[in-house]
Amino acid sequence: MNFGYNCAMALKILVINGPNLNMLGRRETDIYGDVTLQEMMTDLSAYAASQGAELRSVQSNLEGDLVAAVQAAAGDGAESADGVVLNAGALTHYSIALRDAVAAVDVPVVETHLSNVYAREDFRHRSVLAEVCLGVVAGFGPSSYRLATDALIERLSR
Amino acid sequence: MNFGYNCAMALKILVINGPNLNMLGRRETDIYGDVTLQEMMTDLSAYAASQGAELRSVQSNLEGDLVAAVQAAAGDGAESADGVVLNAGALTHYSIALRDAVAAVDVPVVETHLSNVYAREDFRHRSVLAEVCLGVVAGFGPSSYRLATDALIERLSR
Amino acid sequence: MNFGYNCAMALKILVINGPNLNMLGRRETDIYGDVTLQEMMTDLSAYAASQGAELRSVQSNLEGDLVAAVQAAAGDGAESADGVVLNAGALTHYSIALRDAVAAVDVPVVETHLSNVYAREDFRHRSVLAEVCLGVVAGFGPSSYRLATDALIERLSR
Amino acid sequence: MNFGYNCAMALKILVINGPNLNMLGRRETDIYGDVTLQEMMTDLSAYAASQGAELRSVQSNLEGDLVAAVQAAAGDGAESADGVVLNAGALTHYSIALRDAVAAVDVPVVETHLSNVYAREDFRHRSVLAEVCLGVVAGFGPSSYRLATDALIERLSR
Amino acid sequence: MNFGYNCAMALKILVINGPNLNMLGRRETDIYGDVTLQEMMTDLSAYAASQGAELRSVQSNLEGDLVAAVQAAAGDGAESADGVVLNAGALTHYSIALRDAVAAVDVPVVETHLSNVYAREDFRHRSVLAEVCLGVVAGFGPSSYRLATDALIERLSR
Amino acid sequence: MNFGYNCAMALKILVINGPNLNMLGRRETDIYGDVTLQEMMTDLSAYAASQGAELRSVQSNLEGDLVAAVQAAAGDGAESADGVVLNAGALTHYSIALRDAVAAVDVPVVETHLSNVYAREDFRHRSVLAEVCLGVVAGFGPSSYRLATDALIERLSR
Amino acid sequence: MNFGYNCAMALKILVINGPNLNMLGRRETDIYGDVTLQEMMTDLSAYAASQGAELRSVQSNLEGDLVAAVQAAAGDGAESADGVVLNAGALTHYSIALRDAVAAVDVPVVETHLSNVYAREDFRHRSVLAEVCLGVVAGFGPSSYRLATDALIERLSR
Amino acid sequence: MNFGYNCAMALKILVINGPNLNMLGRRETDIYGDVTLQEMMTDLSAYAASQGAELRSVQSNLEGDLVAAVQAAAGDGAESADGVVLNAGALTHYSIALRDAVAAVDVPVVETHLSNVYAREDFRHRSVLAEVCLGVVAGFGPSSYRLATDALIERLSR
Amino acid sequence: MNFGYNCAMALKILVINGPNLNMLGRRETDIYGDVTLQEMMTDLSAYAASQGAELRSVQSNLEGDLVAAVQAAAGDGAESADGVVLNAGALTHYSIALRDAVAAVDVPVVETHLSNVYAREDFRHRSVLAEVCLGVVAGFGPSSYRLATDALIERLSR
Amino acid sequence: MNFGYNCAMALKILVINGPNLNMLGRRETDIYGDVTLQEMMTDLSAYAASQGAELRSVQSNLEGDLVAAVQAAAGDGAESADGVVLNAGALTHYSIALRDAVAAVDVPVVETHLSNVYAREDFRHRSVLAEVCLGVVAGFGPSSYRLATDALIERLSR
Amino acid sequence: MNFGYNCAMALKILVINGPNLNMLGRRETDIYGDVTLQEMMTDLSAYAASQGAELRSVQSNLEGDLVAAVQAAAGDGAESADGVVLNAGALTHYSIALRDAVAAVDVPVVETHLSNVYAREDFRHRSVLAEVCLGVVAGFGPSSYRLATDALIERLSR
Amino acid sequence: MNFGYNCAMALKILVINGPNLNMLGRRETDIYGDVTLQEMMTDLSAYAASQGAELRSVQSNLEGDLVAAVQAAAGDGAESADGVVLNAGALTHYSIALRDAVAAVDVPVVETHLSNVYAREDFRHRSVLAEVCLGVVAGFGPSSYRLATDALIERLSR
Repeated sequence: MNFGYNCAMALKILVINGPNLNMLGRRETDIYGDVTLQEMMTDLSAYAASQGAELRSVQSNLEGDLVAAVQAAAGDGAESADGVVLNAGALTHYSIALRDAVAAVDVPVVETHLSNVYAREDFRHRSVLAEVCLGVVAGFGPSSYRLATDALIERLSR
Repeated sequence: MNFGYNCAMALKILVINGPNLNMLGRRETDIYGDVTLQEMMTDLSAYAASQGAELRSVQSNLEGDLVAAVQAAAGDGAESADGVVLNAGALTHYSIALRDAVAAVDVPVVETHLSNVYAREDFRHRSVLAEVCLGVVAGFGPSSYRLATDALIERLSR
Repeated sequence: MNFGYNCAMALKILVINGPNLNMLGRRETDIYGDVTLQEMMTDLSAYAASQGAELRSVQSNLEGDLVAAVQAAAGDGAESADGVVLNAGALTHYSIALRDAVAAVDVPVVETHLSNVYAREDFRHRSVLAEVCLGVVAGFGPSSYRLATDALIERLSR
Repeated sequence: MNFGYNCAMALKILVINGPNLNMLGRRETDIYGDVTLQEMMTDLSAYAASQGAELRSVQSNLEGDLVAAVQAAAGDGAESADGVVLNAGALTHYSIALRDAVAAVDVPVVETHLSNVYAREDFRHRSVLAEVCLGVVAGFGPSSYRLATDALIERLSR
Repeated sequence: MNFGYNCAMALKILVINGPNLNMLGRRETDIYGDVTLQEMMTDLSAYAASQGAELRSVQSNLEGDLVAAVQAAAGDGAESADGVVLNAGALTHYSIALRDAVAAVDVPVVETHLSNVYAREDFRHRSVLAEVCLGVVAGFGPSSYRLATDALIERLSR
Repeated sequence: MNFGYNCAMALKILVINGPNLNMLGRRETDIYGDVTLQEMMTDLSAYAASQGAELRSVQSNLEGDLVAAVQAAAGDGAESADGVVLNAGALTHYSIALRDAVAAVDVPVVETHLSNVYAREDFRHRSVLAEVCLGVVAGFGPSSYRLATDALIERLSR
Repeated sequence: MNFGYNCAMALKILVINGPNLNMLGRRETDIYGDVTLQEMMTDLSAYAASQGAELRSVQSNLEGDLVAAVQAAAGDGAESADGVVLNAGALTHYSIALRDAVAAVDVPVVETHLSNVYAREDFRHRSVLAEVCLGVVAGFGPSSYRLATDALIERLSR
Repeated sequence: MNFGYNCAMALKILVINGPNLNMLGRRETDIYGDVTLQEMMTDLSAYAASQGAELRSVQSNLEGDLVAAVQAAAGDGAESADGVVLNAGALTHYSIALRDAVAAVDVPVVETHLSNVYAREDFRHRSVLAEVCLGVVAGFGPSSYRLATDALIERLSR
Repeated sequence: MNFGYNCAMALKILVINGPNLNMLGRRETDIYGDVTLQEMMTDLSAYAASQGAELRSVQSNLEGDLVAAVQAAAGDGAESADGVVLNAGALTHYSIALRDAVAAVDVPVVETHLSNVYAREDFRHRSVLAEVCLGVVAGFGPSSYRLATDALIERLSR
Repeated sequence: MNFGYNCAMALKILVINGPNLNMLGRRETDIYGDVTLQEMMTDLSAYAASQGAELRSVQSNLEGDLVAAVQAAAGDGAESADGVVLNAGALTHYSIALRDAVAAVDVPVVETHLSNVYAREDFRHRSVLAEVCLGVVAGFGPSSYRLATDALIERLSR
Repeated sequence: MNFGYNCAMALKILVINGPNLNMLGRRETDIYGDVTLQEMMTDLSAYAASQGAELRSVQSNLEGDLVAAVQAAAGDGAESADGVVLNAGALTHYSIALRDAVAAVDVPVVETHLSNVYAREDFRHRSVLAEVCLGVVAGFGPSSYRLATDALIERLSR
Repeated sequence: MNFGYNCAMALKILVINGPNLNMLGRRETDIYGDVTLQEMMTDLSAYAASQGAELRSVQSNLEGDLVAAVQAAAGDGAESADGVVLNAGALTHYSIALRDAVAAVDVPVVETHLSNVYAREDFRHRSVLAEVCLGVVAGFGPSSYRLATDALIERLSR
């Protein structure tokens, strides 16, 4: 077992953020801190770059936009990606449409959550996405994104 | 947001492995690979050391041993630890005794799984431990352990 | 107990209407009457004005738009509001994303329904929004909106 | 749509209060305030009078008394009423006998609650009464009664 | 098999009517007819007398009164009876207290309903009483009482 | 209310007996007595005749035969009947085919059982037939049939 | 995609009708029309012939007969068929025996229903057969059969 | 029974395709074939034209767009239609908003699916739309659309 | 840990007995013994007195009476008490009204049962009261009362 | 403990085979092998004979026939038997009629299955027969029958 | 009724403590106090001695050890006991093995808990042990043990 | 089909007995007889030897020991075996850890029970082990073991 890796050509990582994540840093800052989504993504891009990967992120409150983003990641256009970090927010728990999108594409997807969803309301314990994702990282705040990115890079570098 | 950290004194990490994990590398090698638990733990120790942490691991098929290991981690004896990476195997799904042990101690615990348990049988989708853990990492094979270790070190280094 | 109140500066009320409410007055008029949503909102604005409040309304069939409207109500832009009357239509029963938006903002939200949803199909008996709203008014036709507006004004005038 | 109304002869409204509501103002005053049920009903009567309606109220801890009160409201005796505001307290959740009484009479009944029952224990989310009532008002404290009274007057004035 | 019987001393039958049955003949007369409970019981007494039995009836909206009536039937006072015809109305579906009363006494009890409760709402399909009764007669309007009385007389005449 | 009746032309009653009822009197005689189904039906015919009705009975262990018997009862052949007493035995609990047959015909059907099915296993508490029958008589042994016949004659004599 | 097809040798289609379908045209004619099953099958045969297929039909109220018909369709006797249109009536919802028969044979089976079973009682929403059939056509009255026949011919003509 | 029909003026059919159907022919081609949605719709239009109907199709990943399309079909604008073929994809299983739209319009809607959804995951067995549709056609690949179109034309030609 | 205690002023204990407990000693004496409730309460009073407490008891078959008794215990009238031993009988399992009364008062309440309710019917395993009581004592016959009284005295003596 | 036995008069064993078992050896031969039911029964008879028992077998797709066979086994005609090996096929999971037949007779019955039904679909995990049988043998192919026969002989030889 | 008792020979009481109870006094001391399990047992022994009983206690985190302890209590070795006080901790909720052990022995067992388990998480409301125990005492902290010991002594002294 | 077999080298069979089985012959002897586990195993070994197999048995109350025994059976040490007869006792119903051990090894395992678990409490009807075992034998007392051994030998001799 060897955790190291390196890749000649930069891996392209897409981070997809779902509903209400645009409110980060502006709401419930005592819980989530005062880092905005934009700042978080900027930091994450820098981290990815340091690992030799190119990271791009999107956010939308619209289920259909997230479906389209997943589809585009698997396309061959400018929005394509080698892997996806997906924090679908509340849609995690009921969007079968998003699940179908993930299942349809060959691009590996890692489900991630800032909070430990299993320690919250019952309806947050069930993810309709997890079954078709590579794996899940949840509960570590902004670090969840970094760990998910690491997991993705490692998988893609094999 | 800053993912860096450093710690004057070495953090002590305990990895607790539950039932059947002693069979790794010896069964279903087409699925799980031929790395044994011992090799995996050796590699993980080396990784932890490179991050300035001291990592020790135990394995048992007995629920009560795992309960005791969690208790000891919170004690002040030789078996104490600053944080725990816990792969409780099948006990994840029904051991309320283990949950109580985790809930009782102040030591942060990260639940981890080699496989994506959410993509397996229905009874593996529910963890009785997750609610009292810091977070969950699942689905990345041996890397799950590394990512869980990273998460723990980062949390402990704050 | 005193039901009177007065406010120096006009309160701003936002009414958010969900999917299919744009069809009011044009469908099933034997049930819902021939008043269109626009007429209903115009009347409601006049009523609110008579109570010293400024009322604005939006309608969308898109979950994400409703999420954005709730977020904007809590912002400091032109779309901000002191309180929200929310008739989420069918989304009431499954949009956890909308629930998260309501939970995230400090603006009080009153859930309202034209019909008595508890006297309809079983799946309409459950609201995923009610838990995070101030209260619920349902079953009084267009008057539900007026009562919800009254409740909001009263709460905001305390 | 016109929210105005007027009635030649005073409407008679009956307010029925169920178990434990006689404790208002005397228990958990930090939550419910220090207004007693009697004071609350006195204020409500005054408000109703200002709207040209005559309001009477009863309270009982006995399910059978509440059933009888609903029956009497539909009778032609001194206890008859044109409409009922019903806060059945805990009986809301299991008294099918009370439901049958409401369903049997022609008098419109509005279910009301001081607290937002949907934000409390699961067993309070289900009302066996709501299906046979005109509508529901919940969550606005004493104002819930006033709003329910308004709704009733408006309906009766059509 | 012989359906005939005769008894030297008159059997005493008690008919217990639960909540809302006092409204018979006065509500929903298009469904239930315009026969009042009093008229129905008078006819039933006459029928019982023709079969050599003495029939007495009570009605109450109070669960506790019904419990007491069942207890008294098994006593040796003026309210004792050889058998009971029990139409507990809505209490049929949730009054475990009434069930306990029936279970505690040696007097045979026949559960009866005017309507076919199995053809109504789901919550009316379950009786918590039936298990401890002799049997059930439901769906034949006033005749349900007569048939239940017949069943009781026959059983008591063995 | 008047329980008397008389009819110029004899009513035709069909009794349909389902699976295992052919074993009556030959099995578990300590519970069910030693009266065979044939004897029971002979007695019942005599009773019906005394009430001016002509009673015929069939028994089958085959669901399809029972369906056919119900259909024939509604036909105009020799097997037609004015009303049906139906003891479907175990099929009561799952034969939707038999339910459909009952629902399809205009002939009134009374569900009957020798034992009090509600005092037996849970799966016997639910009847898929009751909803489409006129009513139910259960728990009185052979008398259940006589009471069901009475109920049917009375209904048909209106 | 091309919907056309032609076949040198006539395809053999078997239509299997379950319980109560023999009552078509004779019961509830306001709902189902006055076309009998026989007339419907005659028309369907003519239609099939016009499409170059030979269509035969059977009806039985007996589950075992339907099982045998499915088995025979897969045999090499006179009752064999290239495909089956199956309207199992009420057995659709619980006959695992019929399901097993369908699963055991290589002959493609199309489940069909005259009515839209999903708009009826809850217990009709579940088919134990659908999982092992080619597909489902429901809700179009007699046309359901024609469409199912078309689907079958097309599949067989590939 | 006669399956023929003809109509003076061309019927207008609208085909509404939900989330991820834009990926047809581009993903999982071993399962779904290499026909794209556009090609499929083109073929279907030609088929409809041959039947004297004018067919138009839309696709969207956004629930709100599908709601709007259904509403527009019932309007009198350029997007109106005489009937709708609806493949809502994953939204079939949870979009009550779409259900409400279908229920609100007078235009008949046929639910259709390429695959046999009843032979897939449990959560795909339930459609919240089927209850308010005319009927369902599922499991026949592209032919499902043609059969649904046939069903619609036939219904509209009556 | 010290189980001793002493109190200057006599503690006042109220024992509340629910439906059917008045039948003790008169029914099922082979199970419950021939001690009546009155005798049991007399003995219990003597025991309490020996512990320096003043014990009073009430019994009612009426839910509302029990609610009132709990309320009165918390009042400052003659019926006030320092603690309550509550055997609510069958109401234990469904009286949310009684639960609300217990929750509303500051007086500690101990739930008690003569029999081991967990070894009886399933519906007796659930108490709606236990969550708001101090604790539960069940299964020791009359001694359950004594133990509950002990527990109460000890708590009150702290 | 001694597994040996011997019996003066030959024991009579009846093997009852349910729906679709007549297809053995002709369908899915890769799974079930190419041994037909007839061959299997012939072998089993020979085996039974070698153990001093006389074995007869029947098969039917009709639930009612199986009920009759069980009844006949307990009779004193030519079809009587000392014990029954019952493979009810799919009826295992829902035929309460068959269960009743087994429960009614004194003849011991052993439930048996060729396949391990617990490793198949969820609905095959539940047997409505097992509770009234002597025991269960499942999962050993044709050997299941032999083992069930052994169990029966041993029990009968005690 | 007499609560006194005395016994010539000292009764032997065994207290069995399950998982995590060894942590008492060392964890969550603000909730559970700072008394350790050892101190608590010492006090309890003294109390038992004062009542003329000899009390011994064990603790284990291993389910199998607890099973063995229960078995040994019923044996005739040094570990035998006349009665058992059992606080199985988390195993209370799922250890059927422990339940079987309790059910197998003749020694009376009293289930006890420090906290009111019915006021905690849902999964703690269900005990798999209670059904086979003599009774339950829960919610009184260390006093729960004393009360359970009292109950046991009283039962054993009869 | 041929039930005979012979094997050059002796097969090794391991019998694993779970919690409480060590109590056999010493508890509830009226039900289970007075044969101890040791005697039963001795007899079984003799029987196995007569069939040319070498049988060894273990018993433990500890889940982890049973897991280890299954693992060892698949190893190449002295504790290896060609097949396992597993009576996991109560662990059958919840030990996913044991299930995982069985699933992980290549050694065939036969689940067995002395009693007919399907005729006992509901929670004993579900086995978490059966799905991963070869088959199940239950209900025949000590003979269950012999039959399971036979099944195993036969399978291993193929």
